[in-house]
Amino acid sequence: MAVPPSTYPRRLLPLFLGLFQSALLLFFALFITYDEPSAQAENTNLVANQVYSIFPFFQDIQVMLVVGLGLLLTFLPRYGFSSLTHNFLLLNFSMQWALVLQGLLHHFHHGQIHLDLHKLLISEFAAVTVLISVGAILGRASPCQLLVMATCEIPTYLASEWVIVTCLGVLDVGGTITIHIFSCYFGLGVSKALFRATQQPLHPKETPTPSSDFMSLVGTLILWVFWPSFVAVLCQPGDSQHRAILNTLLAMSASAITTVVASSLLERDSKLSPGHLQNGSLAGGVAIGVVADMAVPPVAALALGSLSAVVCVFGFRFLTPLLGRKLTLLDQCGIHNLHGLPGILGATASVVAVLVASKDTTGSQPSQLSPAGGNASEVVERPWGSRGVGGQALCQAAGLAVAIGASLLAGLLTGAALRLPCLARPPERLCFDDSLYFKIQDQAESLGPDSSAEERALALKEQV
Amino acid sequence: MAVPPSTYPRRLLPLFLGLFQSALLLFFALFITYDEPSAQAENTNLVANQVYSIFPFFQDIQVMLVVGLGLLLTFLPRYGFSSLTHNFLLLNFSMQWALVLQGLLHHFHHGQIHLDLHKLLISEFAAVTVLISVGAILGRASPCQLLVMATCEIPTYLASEWVIVTCLGVLDVGGTITIHIFSCYFGLGVSKALFRATQQPLHPKETPTPSSDFMSLVGTLILWVFWPSFVAVLCQPGDSQHRAILNTLLAMSASAITTVVASSLLERDSKLSPGHLQNGSLAGGVAIGVVADMAVPPVAALALGSLSAVVCVFGFRFLTPLLGRKLTLLDQCGIHNLHGLPGILGATASVVAVLVASKDTTGSQPSQLSPAGGNASEVVERPWGSRGVGGQALCQAAGLAVAIGASLLAGLLTGAALRLPCLARPPERLCFDDSLYFKIQDQAESLGPDSSAEERALALKEQV
Amino acid sequence: MAVPPSTYPRRLLPLFLGLFQSALLLFFALFITYDEPSAQAENTNLVANQVYSIFPFFQDIQVMLVVGLGLLLTFLPRYGFSSLTHNFLLLNFSMQWALVLQGLLHHFHHGQIHLDLHKLLISEFAAVTVLISVGAILGRASPCQLLVMATCEIPTYLASEWVIVTCLGVLDVGGTITIHIFSCYFGLGVSKALFRATQQPLHPKETPTPSSDFMSLVGTLILWVFWPSFVAVLCQPGDSQHRAILNTLLAMSASAITTVVASSLLERDSKLSPGHLQNGSLAGGVAIGVVADMAVPPVAALALGSLSAVVCVFGFRFLTPLLGRKLTLLDQCGIHNLHGLPGILGATASVVAVLVASKDTTGSQPSQLSPAGGNASEVVERPWGSRGVGGQALCQAAGLAVAIGASLLAGLLTGAALRLPCLARPPERLCFDDSLYFKIQDQAESLGPDSSAEERALALKEQV
Repeated sequence: MAVPPSTYPRRLLPLFLGLFQSALLLFFALFITYDEPSAQAENTNLVANQVYSIFPFFQDIQVMLVVGLGLLLTFLPRYGFSSLTHNFLLLNFSMQWALVLQGLLHHFHHGQIHLDLHKLLISEFAAVTVLISVGAILGRASPCQLLVMATCEIPTYLASEWVIVTCLGVLDVGGTITIHIFSCYFGLGVSKALFRATQQPLHPKETPTPSSDFMSLVGTLILWVFWPSFVAVLCQPGDSQHRAILNTLLAMSASAITTVVASSLLERDSKLSPGHLQNGSLAGGVAIGVVADMAVPPVAALALGSLSAVVCVFGFRFLTPLLGRKLTLLDQCGIHNLHGLPGILGATASVVAVLVASKDTTGSQPSQLSPAGGNASEVVERPWGSRGVGGQALCQAAGLAVAIGASLLAGLLTGAALRLPCLARPPERLCFDDSLYFKIQDQAESLGPDSSAEERALALKEQV
Repeated sequence: MAVPPSTYPRRLLPLFLGLFQSALLLFFALFITYDEPSAQAENTNLVANQVYSIFPFFQDIQVMLVVGLGLLLTFLPRYGFSSLTHNFLLLNFSMQWALVLQGLLHHFHHGQIHLDLHKLLISEFAAVTVLISVGAILGRASPCQLLVMATCEIPTYLASEWVIVTCLGVLDVGGTITIHIFSCYFGLGVSKALFRATQQPLHPKETPTPSSDFMSLVGTLILWVFWPSFVAVLCQPGDSQHRAILNTLLAMSASAITTVVASSLLERDSKLSPGHLQNGSLAGGVAIGVVADMAVPPVAALALGSLSAVVCVFGFRFLTPLLGRKLTLLDQCGIHNLHGLPGILGATASVVAVLVASKDTTGSQPSQLSPAGGNASEVVERPWGSRGVGGQALCQAAGLAVAIGASLLAGLLTGAALRLPCLARPPERLCFDDSLYFKIQDQAESLGPDSSAEERALALKEQV
Repeated sequence: MAVPPSTYPRRLLPLFLGLFQSALLLFFALFITYDEPSAQAENTNLVANQVYSIFPFFQDIQVMLVVGLGLLLTFLPRYGFSSLTHNFLLLNFSMQWALVLQGLLHHFHHGQIHLDLHKLLISEFAAVTVLISVGAILGRASPCQLLVMATCEIPTYLASEWVIVTCLGVLDVGGTITIHIFSCYFGLGVSKALFRATQQPLHPKETPTPSSDFMSLVGTLILWVFWPSFVAVLCQPGDSQHRAILNTLLAMSASAITTVVASSLLERDSKLSPGHLQNGSLAGGVAIGVVADMAVPPVAALALGSLSAVVCVFGFRFLTPLLGRKLTLLDQCGIHNLHGLPGILGATASVVAVLVASKDTTGSQPSQLSPAGGNASEVVERPWGSRGVGGQALCQAAGLAVAIGASLLAGLLTGAALRLPCLARPPERLCFDDSLYFKIQDQAESLGPDSSAEERALALKEQV
């Protein structure tokens, strides 16, 4: 199917990205430099240790985001190339954009900005929010729309993260509240404002095929394997990081099994739904993030993992259709089930954990509850003592409220902006199709094996 | 093709898993806790170092088992989703079950069980045996059967590993005897008792397609890359671990090339067989495990890798068909060729290595031959001196005998148990088909590209 | 389609590999041993630290070469199995061959050769050149031809690397000049001499399909993620390695975005070309290698990444067709665009960096510009001071000239040797087809989903 060139203002994408890239170069030239090389041997050892301790985690997270999440999104059978590429493009764009904003906001008063791996990691975390939010409108939005969405989401995230972590002192080492919940409701807000009350009919290219479901499951498994690195990277080395890794492993293991239980109880004929597996297995990782380094017992991690898988599967089975019918809310990837519901569960658990943990340990191990948050290097002394247990519990709840409120509001505004005609939302019949954005053969004419079948059919036709 | 719901007692799977998960929660609530946080800074450093030294290996092994092994098993073209999911489910279930049993068996007399990454790793190793054994009956067994099999195999493995490593003092750092040989003969025993004397005819869905062979090869390559981590993770840091890594790299490199030689000599027209490549390339890793950290020269690692690839390819070409004809033994994935034969080769090599190595070094480097076995942290002083060289060699042979004997016996009993009608072995015509267990489109009706060809053919039919 | 056995002298491949493997065993038996075990505890710690610092990088590089590069080459839809297998085979063969030659050349005067992970890594780097060069003739050469090519390329590379790094003292920590440029022009030389003036017509099996393009993009993403490990593995730990990682991350991020800009500006309808994405995203990694650990500001890494992506995309769009028409030069994978042009760009940048950097820092931080080169362990003191800035800049340029000259010449000679009839270049009609080398079903008869369509078509035919 040939797409008429006129239907899509295609020059906007390179123009936008080209301008941004130029501005980035200018910004880097003016403000960004590396740390001074360390003169002493001791210092060199320190840097080396930093590299060895953070770099493997960083690589794991890159694999998760670029390969794992990319593949997870390829469940749309004719949109795999787009899913993978747009995810990759957005990761890079958002990371650079976050680097610029962080540089301007946080470090501008220090003059030159010294770039290091830790700052890149923080920017990468900001980019994750965009990659998650996109799931709500995957396949129905143009790359330009996605880039504008990223442009709006990154500053909102940075502001929200600043309020939640720095002002409120919320403990959230794995980004459950600051990243997962925020990005989920931002994405849903965008979706609502972009598609408004129009019920999106089931698109013929929207249904996964066995092979697209298979690749998506491979993506899930990659995410599942590396998730502990995502949660634990910003923990303080030692006990706290060790515990965060173990808690995440337990939660995700419980999620994997509970997903099978829940899915086969809910589906007709007890057959498992691929969508449940692809998402439910990861729900535990979302929920555990906020309590991963707290002094929770192992059984709590298991229970939280199980519960979040149940919540996720129930969400897919009942809540998503309900929201679609009642609120005409489109949530293409079910991000509300994977990031929203388990996130809220985890935030609630953190309130309980704060209340219970401090009762148990009566302040003797404050280090357990003073994790690194967003900016490990800057955290020195949390006002844990002065705030009191109840205060901290309240703060966790307040953080949850801020994350949901700010993201929904900003998402709705962003979604309204995405309706600008110049951003070229693809017409319905061209949705979910790689051939709109990529110079690839139409699938119906391409595959070797088919061609023979086709050719025979065609030859036959001619004979007839 | 619709599967009538009545043919399969589908509620058993969630029931079984749900009960297990509840019991697990209870067990964890009662017995399992984390280590006390370490008070001193020194101790924190120690923990941090432990995390950094073991965690990257652990992640590598997770990738191997979840992604690599999962993909390797997807050579059955219509059973890829099941292979991947069942492998994932079994890994999690077996790991949790091993954690419970290990807790009960080994640590119960200490009261509270302190969970750490090392204990999770040991449980993961136990789970590997299940994942290997399943290969013998892949595609012809229901998930319930596989779970019951795992339930029986884990305690047998723990007992056998205890006898082999703790009682007999067998040196087997890479699990060649304790894991590979054990799981292979367990799997074959299950297969024999489950299918008895019935010759399984070639199923039409059993033949790999180019694309399923391709994904399976990708799985092999992932396993191949990370195999050194699997072998070396339990070695003592330093020389011993360095040598284990190098030996594994050499053995696997030799395997890769020798597989090509052997396969192209044995096949008609010298064409390579995908099955040979998928398995033979890994044979060296199986064989080297038992001698990886011993004082063997590099040439021995190369030779062992080459030899095990030859043995593996010969097994596929001659032994598997023979066993199928003479013993009506079904070995769907050829685990006997990948795990059994190279394992026996490696165990034999370890006898020789013990005899030769101690002659060379006359006891001056006992540390080279006292590796970590299953429980690195608990090994203190092996009775190597008191036992003598011949005694150790004898022990290695005895370990091999125990592994084969115990696993065959337990496998046969387990296989007999799997014949229980309530476990719902799928009928022959529904074997090797994802659509029995998953809510996915029938492949014949799904793929976009085909549909067009089909539609044309159908449309044409109507015209005619 | 049955290939008559007579058309292809198939016994040559196992014969060649078998002989090589035997010679390798002999060589290892005679000359290669492991390091003596270290007696002191301190030394053990040192070895352990070495393992932990180099091994994760090593594993990353293995993933890149075996999985990432393997998948990148599978864009030929019916040649995926061959691409993956030949890549894997060549990696192992070349690595072993480089190990032998390095042993003989560099270490023979020390008597016994002590194998360690670092020596394996250096051999792996040598093998990379073969894997890159092969891209020029992928799909049109037999495995025997590829092995002979590897046999010739490895010694040439070692000689050229010795001249460039040891004699000329060229700074090239990421192998831009020694590996990428060398292998590119070697491959082009081989291609030219092998195919001479015959214009290769477009083969019907040469055009990528959506699914082969998809797998190739997954390969690109894997390479993209792990590229920093490739560049930084030989850096000196500490600041230098940290900077190399950051520079590579920045350059590749800029490449990713600029590729989208350039591709959509150049293509009709602004659609992105999959080939551009698969290659352009990596161009920054090629170019940055030579300056990664130098004292360049972050903006230079970004600019270099952007520029190299532009150059790469322009190469694909204009230069490759031009070279094909004017010089009848076949470059199947476009290695000139990914490795040649960005490599030259990087080498030029290194000249500038040397001139500028030393002006800035006036010799106060000589350590910044004395990286590890090819043989980190042997580098002690570069004659940087005595040579002067201009001298070093000249050396960088001379290194570039040597790499291009030596590789082109050696490539042309090798290509001429590959015309030997006994090496069995596949006839045109059998090119790009797995079924020539592998015992796999012909794709037209294999895929489950198709068979149904086909069967219907055939059944219909019979009815008619």
